[in-house]
Amino acid sequence: VVHNGIIVPRLDADEDSEMAFEQVLSEYRNLQKLFPQDQKDSRITDLLENVVLGSLEVLASVDRKTLTTGLVGKRYFSFSHQGKISRAVNEDLFLEEPGEIRKFFETIRSTGFVSVGSTFLTRACYTSAVAFCCLTDIFKTRDQKTPATYFEYLIGHIIATVLECNPTKQLDVLSGDLSAKLPTDFIFDLGERRTKFHVPVKTSTRERVIQVWAHQRVLDGVYGTGRYKGILVCLSETKLDHETLDVIEICLPDQWRIYQMFIAHLERVYYLDVPIRYGQMISEYPRIEVRQFGDFFLEYEALSG
Amino acid sequence: VVHNGIIVPRLDADEDSEMAFEQVLSEYRNLQKLFPQDQKDSRITDLLENVVLGSLEVLASVDRKTLTTGLVGKRYFSFSHQGKISRAVNEDLFLEEPGEIRKFFETIRSTGFVSVGSTFLTRACYTSAVAFCCLTDIFKTRDQKTPATYFEYLIGHIIATVLECNPTKQLDVLSGDLSAKLPTDFIFDLGERRTKFHVPVKTSTRERVIQVWAHQRVLDGVYGTGRYKGILVCLSETKLDHETLDVIEICLPDQWRIYQMFIAHLERVYYLDVPIRYGQMISEYPRIEVRQFGDFFLEYEALSG
Repeated sequence: VVHNGIIVPRLDADEDSEMAFEQVLSEYRNLQKLFPQDQKDSRITDLLENVVLGSLEVLASVDRKTLTTGLVGKRYFSFSHQGKISRAVNEDLFLEEPGEIRKFFETIRSTGFVSVGSTFLTRACYTSAVAFCCLTDIFKTRDQKTPATYFEYLIGHIIATVLECNPTKQLDVLSGDLSAKLPTDFIFDLGERRTKFHVPVKTSTRERVIQVWAHQRVLDGVYGTGRYKGILVCLSETKLDHETLDVIEICLPDQWRIYQMFIAHLERVYYLDVPIRYGQMISEYPRIEVRQFGDFFLEYEALSG
Repeated sequence: VVHNGIIVPRLDADEDSEMAFEQVLSEYRNLQKLFPQDQKDSRITDLLENVVLGSLEVLASVDRKTLTTGLVGKRYFSFSHQGKISRAVNEDLFLEEPGEIRKFFETIRSTGFVSVGSTFLTRACYTSAVAFCCLTDIFKTRDQKTPATYFEYLIGHIIATVLECNPTKQLDVLSGDLSAKLPTDFIFDLGERRTKFHVPVKTSTRERVIQVWAHQRVLDGVYGTGRYKGILVCLSETKLDHETLDVIEICLPDQWRIYQMFIAHLERVYYLDVPIRYGQMISEYPRIEVRQFGDFFLEYEALSG
């Protein structure tokens, strides 16, 4: 099978899925080489597409376990392989069809976002993120770094491509006779007197999220309030209990309200799988605009204005 | 041997040190029961003294490894037992003599701090902290929670005793038609219209320290700037490379400067083993008052004023 000029071997049913995983991993390693050099390089789109399609191909031959959850309106399952089970996968967001994934990456290349819509874009990004993450969950042992880094590449590349702008990962923040750099997640600077974005990317937030508001506070203090718009991008907040196979979402909306009121203002929080309790924050003071990530593709021009 | 009415069995040279460790651990479990009820309970002083003396007794029969370090003026060693090595111990701060430890806890009971001086108090607290931590390092596997919780008990109890005030661990931070609690480290409130202290306690800070400044920012925003004085208490910032047996200190003074200038103002940062680079921050703008912890006993009245 040839995707964008790169040959991806088709798997026979009896081929070792470990070997197929190694092939996906070698594509990921190419991503590791390219991404730090030029985040919007179009070859990264091709590599990501190969990683996602390769991951889906392996996962198609792997067992699934239905999970229970009290989260109203959500359904989850896990992939399982040789006694290991993957993170929880939202059944309604997961696109099995390789054709859908190809359509998504075509949309990234052509930037024709309006016609496909926010929900499709959210699902396709969700699938692109979790497919490879689930693969590492079941084929690697206790590797949390690879999924987190992959997620950063995926979101970083997509946003860089959409904004036509490469991010930096640190900022000069002192002036006069002092100088220091603040290491941050992505900073996208659209140019002189134009919008600048502060974009932290996390697979889940847990107790470390206060850092996001604190960094935003530093940027507001150094550059003027609102000069950098804070946009947090997250995968999900699900937690799978490996014994009971039950899925919950860990959310601290009261803490988020306190941070939004007293530390700094975040412009958006995008999720690929929007947690129920955070999704409700959009409707009451102190409002936090928590949205599905697909919305970004439709409102980035308004946000950049 | 009887310490403060509690019998601590004396160890024979041939007695199993594992068993002695279990005895220290059972005293620690008593600490776990008492501390949450009344942090300044004088029985906690007795239990802490037993844990420290018991730990020193076991450690006296254990091998030591000299460590190398490029830290000018500092010397470190590790305890080692059956192939495991403990965290790095600062040789010049470690008090071997049980008599010194007894003198220290007597000083806590009598609050006669001026006569013994800041350096003795720092060394005695340092020894009280690391002795038990080293014991868990070499007798338990991958347990980071027990040393961290013990350190919180030790510092929490000492400060509660000195200030004659029990801390809380959360604060109401919203008002009007909203309400929410901010979970914090220790909050010591000396009473109406008197000083309030925000006291985070960490064995080491690493990348999570921004949370301390961010919480201080929230308190400043909700209650008025400076109404809660921020006092961070840390053990050390040493990192031992288990292969080369070399000790370094992980310090990010530029990050700390940015936080102190743009997030909030911390009144003090106390260390039991002051990292060289943080110790220098006291002398230039933006000043951060990094001091040895023994100073707290001599300046708490001035800070409370």
